[in-house]
Amino acid sequence: MATQTEKPSNYYDIVIVGAGPVGLMLSTCLARWGYKIKHIDNRAEPTPTGRADGVQPRSLDLLRNMGLKSAIMAYKPARVYEVAFWDPPKTGNAGIVRTGTWASCPSFIDARYPFTTLLHQGMIERVFIADLEKNGVQVQRPWTITGFTSDEKVNPEYPVEVQIEHVDGTGSENIRAKYLFGGEGARSFIRDQLKIGITHKDPIAYVWGVMDGVVRTDFPDIKMKCTIHSEQGSIMVIPREDNMVRLYIQIASSTDADFNPRKTATIEEVQASAKRILQPYTIEWERVEWYSVYPIGQGISDKYTLDHRVFLGGDACHTHSPKAGQGMNTAFLDALNLAWKLHAVESGFASRSLLETYEPERKEVAETLLDFDNKYARLFSQRATSDVAAVTAATADVPTGNAPEEENEFIKMFKSSCEFTSGYGVFYKANALNWSATHPAQSHVVLDAAATRLQPGRLFINANVTRVIDANVVHLEQEVPLNGSFRLFVFGGAPAVSAQALRDLAANMARKGSFYQAYARPDAAAVSHHERHNPHSLFFTVCTVLAAPRSAIEIARDLPALLVRYRENVYADDRWDRRVPDAKAAAHAKMGLDQERGGVAVVRPDGHVGIVVKLEEGSATVDALNAYFGSFCTKKLGGDSAQL
Amino acid sequence: MATQTEKPSNYYDIVIVGAGPVGLMLSTCLARWGYKIKHIDNRAEPTPTGRADGVQPRSLDLLRNMGLKSAIMAYKPARVYEVAFWDPPKTGNAGIVRTGTWASCPSFIDARYPFTTLLHQGMIERVFIADLEKNGVQVQRPWTITGFTSDEKVNPEYPVEVQIEHVDGTGSENIRAKYLFGGEGARSFIRDQLKIGITHKDPIAYVWGVMDGVVRTDFPDIKMKCTIHSEQGSIMVIPREDNMVRLYIQIASSTDADFNPRKTATIEEVQASAKRILQPYTIEWERVEWYSVYPIGQGISDKYTLDHRVFLGGDACHTHSPKAGQGMNTAFLDALNLAWKLHAVESGFASRSLLETYEPERKEVAETLLDFDNKYARLFSQRATSDVAAVTAATADVPTGNAPEEENEFIKMFKSSCEFTSGYGVFYKANALNWSATHPAQSHVVLDAAATRLQPGRLFINANVTRVIDANVVHLEQEVPLNGSFRLFVFGGAPAVSAQALRDLAANMARKGSFYQAYARPDAAAVSHHERHNPHSLFFTVCTVLAAPRSAIEIARDLPALLVRYRENVYADDRWDRRVPDAKAAAHAKMGLDQERGGVAVVRPDGHVGIVVKLEEGSATVDALNAYFGSFCTKKLGGDSAQL
Repeated sequence: MATQTEKPSNYYDIVIVGAGPVGLMLSTCLARWGYKIKHIDNRAEPTPTGRADGVQPRSLDLLRNMGLKSAIMAYKPARVYEVAFWDPPKTGNAGIVRTGTWASCPSFIDARYPFTTLLHQGMIERVFIADLEKNGVQVQRPWTITGFTSDEKVNPEYPVEVQIEHVDGTGSENIRAKYLFGGEGARSFIRDQLKIGITHKDPIAYVWGVMDGVVRTDFPDIKMKCTIHSEQGSIMVIPREDNMVRLYIQIASSTDADFNPRKTATIEEVQASAKRILQPYTIEWERVEWYSVYPIGQGISDKYTLDHRVFLGGDACHTHSPKAGQGMNTAFLDALNLAWKLHAVESGFASRSLLETYEPERKEVAETLLDFDNKYARLFSQRATSDVAAVTAATADVPTGNAPEEENEFIKMFKSSCEFTSGYGVFYKANALNWSATHPAQSHVVLDAAATRLQPGRLFINANVTRVIDANVVHLEQEVPLNGSFRLFVFGGAPAVSAQALRDLAANMARKGSFYQAYARPDAAAVSHHERHNPHSLFFTVCTVLAAPRSAIEIARDLPALLVRYRENVYADDRWDRRVPDAKAAAHAKMGLDQERGGVAVVRPDGHVGIVVKLEEGSATVDALNAYFGSFCTKKLGGDSAQL
Repeated sequence: MATQTEKPSNYYDIVIVGAGPVGLMLSTCLARWGYKIKHIDNRAEPTPTGRADGVQPRSLDLLRNMGLKSAIMAYKPARVYEVAFWDPPKTGNAGIVRTGTWASCPSFIDARYPFTTLLHQGMIERVFIADLEKNGVQVQRPWTITGFTSDEKVNPEYPVEVQIEHVDGTGSENIRAKYLFGGEGARSFIRDQLKIGITHKDPIAYVWGVMDGVVRTDFPDIKMKCTIHSEQGSIMVIPREDNMVRLYIQIASSTDADFNPRKTATIEEVQASAKRILQPYTIEWERVEWYSVYPIGQGISDKYTLDHRVFLGGDACHTHSPKAGQGMNTAFLDALNLAWKLHAVESGFASRSLLETYEPERKEVAETLLDFDNKYARLFSQRATSDVAAVTAATADVPTGNAPEEENEFIKMFKSSCEFTSGYGVFYKANALNWSATHPAQSHVVLDAAATRLQPGRLFINANVTRVIDANVVHLEQEVPLNGSFRLFVFGGAPAVSAQALRDLAANMARKGSFYQAYARPDAAAVSHHERHNPHSLFFTVCTVLAAPRSAIEIARDLPALLVRYRENVYADDRWDRRVPDAKAAAHAKMGLDQERGGVAVVRPDGHVGIVVKLEEGSATVDALNAYFGSFCTKKLGGDSAQL
């Protein structure tokens, strides 16, 4: 795909600066897909202690989809299922009392892993680095970027020239690349060079202290995430691996009369403060692993790229308080969003204009994050016990996923907050990738947001199904690994009803000029019969789900040859699901698709839904998909029949 | 516990011969518990290919309990959820047709992992070897045993003398040990030296061919476990990791007129035979990884030990057909059974007579296995389609665990077979460890088999609960790792009802001379407050489960200090369970315990239930436990109050 056999050795597909979460996610994806990468970091080694540590539920899904989850879990991270709130007692007495707890990912969110995973960033970095090394990429350390230019007129294929050097000046390199990525954190050299400004959503700046250590305490919630407000100040408690606990404490705010962003506090001062806040409970430190004080404000980069050759992501684009544990997760998703789009463009599948969707999709999320960060702070500091109790009651284990009857504004905000922080609330607005009423693909077969639960721009919905070929019960949404391909989920409904529609789907997909055929593998004839996900095309993986018990399905008999080729991706929708207890075909029901006639969902390589169409006899289904892909692909698709 | 600081360097706690599954499980357990081990194997390296490959559901629980499951799963083993049966068509036509499938671990078995995990033995060995090395034990290879004697008169503490040497004769050692274990497989040198005979349950011997390889076929069930009978012969298909498949084929039987145990077949002959059997489907080999032909009969060792110093386990004790995938699992459980008993005796907890329970407990299982092996063969070869259909219908997803109404003999046998092969059916008969009406501990508080679902000698029952301290949803049965300790599960019922009973339980456990206090850690005062499972005693870990929502439980308020110390092992029984959908406290309900008043279950270190007693106010509960432990412990327990 991206081999550079005839290029000079200093030509790379991409130069990635910074080996924190955003840089590592980007380089891990691109390395797996065969790109030539120069990845540098100005630190001599991965983060030894401290820094970010929260992996949200949706990020854990992503790590699993990459096959990295078990390596993360092998470090035995702490898992936060609930958050506890501690406040001064209403009696006016001294001390603190627990005023409530709530789930960090309540059951109304259909999460596989309804908890936050807490592990220090260095361990997570090492998991990525090990994977990179398997794919032949070494992070070059401690090296730094000293300059770059980007000009397609000088070199249309490799327009970026980058100068890097060893931090002690003992070596330097000059590199040509197709792309440059700045994942250097808040003080991005690349962003500064591009003269991209930062907009501060909230003018207030803060100084935070953060301390990781092992404590001895009788405070009962030391293994929980806690927000503690007392007359003596406020802290946040976050449990960690290896019996550690992290304390966040606010040291100064620009709202203080004597605010000084350089204000600091010693370890002893923070510990003394924590002791006062936790009274009547006691706390003693057995060990401090890491302590840091840093000023932080809410800021968002005005642009993520100027020319779609030099990109920014992660903390280089957005800074905010550490409270909600969103930093690493947002960084992962920035990188994922960019990675597959670079791949789609560089492999000749998508038009270069696809890259223009990176900034709006991800900047919108960052803005939501900053809004949320503000609200979250207010929520934590102002809500009273009764509200917390109301939330707890209203969001208690709801088996069928029905909304509770009484849903006040506060609960609504709580719910959307939970959705957002879990990562499941992230959604991308309408564009060429995310179908809407204004999308060029218009057809009676397109299912709009009201017609199905699968929503363009939102994540695909989880479902258990039985893989037909080996009777394994599997998580449908995890069946296609992060391979850079679009995922076609063909929900076949009842085989007796949909047989002709399935044949027509396959026949039209196989037609010359269809989205599927236009991007067929040139080496298709030589592909091993063991190839599971990309037998025909590197850009598509197809899964078929039939609303029938496994034992009633005979793949070779019930499906057309194109789908039979994906024999390891054929599923029986025959698993009971507590969220749709009365459904005959639970996965169909969860997706909001007709259990008899099914439907086809196109899911982007990053797991977000692109378009959902009816599974109809004739060519309309594939015509609509041709029009959808035609809106961002390099080739004219579908011929006459695509003119809807 | 077992340090040897003043002993000569050639003194060991145990010499283990053979580094297959039985030897590795034994040595891994004992190494973790601090014993000095000499472990030898006459092969130069772990099994490179082939051999045993089936890990049954209960074994996977065990591996998880040891923290080894993820390392096994990292090899991406195949998972068998269902078995398919193929027979000649009833029409009398040539070829084969699928006559039915059934679950290998149907839903009436409450398994966490309802599938067989298939992975070649060498990978499993490597996981154990890596763990051993963490604990300082290296398997010494290729070394073999050349002789041994055992005489307590010569040396009462180290009665066993063992001679070992390098297989090429370049080195030899003379060792003194407390124990010698023979895990050398069917041709055990140690068994032969002890002149222990083999009893053949079934006089018929077979010659089997087994082939691992990668195939290309249109046979639809190649990823399933299949039993295929055709006019051309019979084979068994077992899927494997890395797209491999294993074929078992019977080459000769002593019932053949011209039987010769040395009869063999070439790879090409077996492949040609498989091709004939699979018709009308085609099969071609892309690669053969391993091929072996071996004669096997059903045999069981007459004794597992003569003097309780030299023990046998695994294939040295029992041989049978490979069909049901039981070999490795039975080996694991032989070793586990012996390991904790050796530990209990050597650490001064249990009387030496405890070792006398190893042979009867494990030999009974081996006998059941051989009976089963016979029945299984008949079942596979004789059952007709209608029976298979009946089984499928009768055992289809039964949410509440109720028995189907019509349950004929065949279904009963099928069910007990599934239970047995999954490992959940293994049970140990009444003895000092497994309470019965004839046990010395007799009290009105003991719950007999009719009064609870927890049955002495059977495995503890799975349940989801919420850990109070951090709100993590956990698998109760996995909360205590394989630490050699007895597990006390205190089901506290409703806190308001049981408060006094819990206080009395703790007070009587803390009394001088109680089972708990008599085996207190001498270093208890110096134990870290982070010690989770053994704060007071190395022989007991206590878990408390309250029938209340997590948010209503305040550990320090609701429990007596002894149980508070196990703050990380306190659980809320507040998770819904599909098997007891109407229960308020599902874990209590699944155990068959009163949801208001609870009960106490003593679980052996190997996960089998020992005794179940009521949680009653006063001393009767602890008195009964004193009497139970007093029947096999080294100390007189409970004083006067233990005389029931």
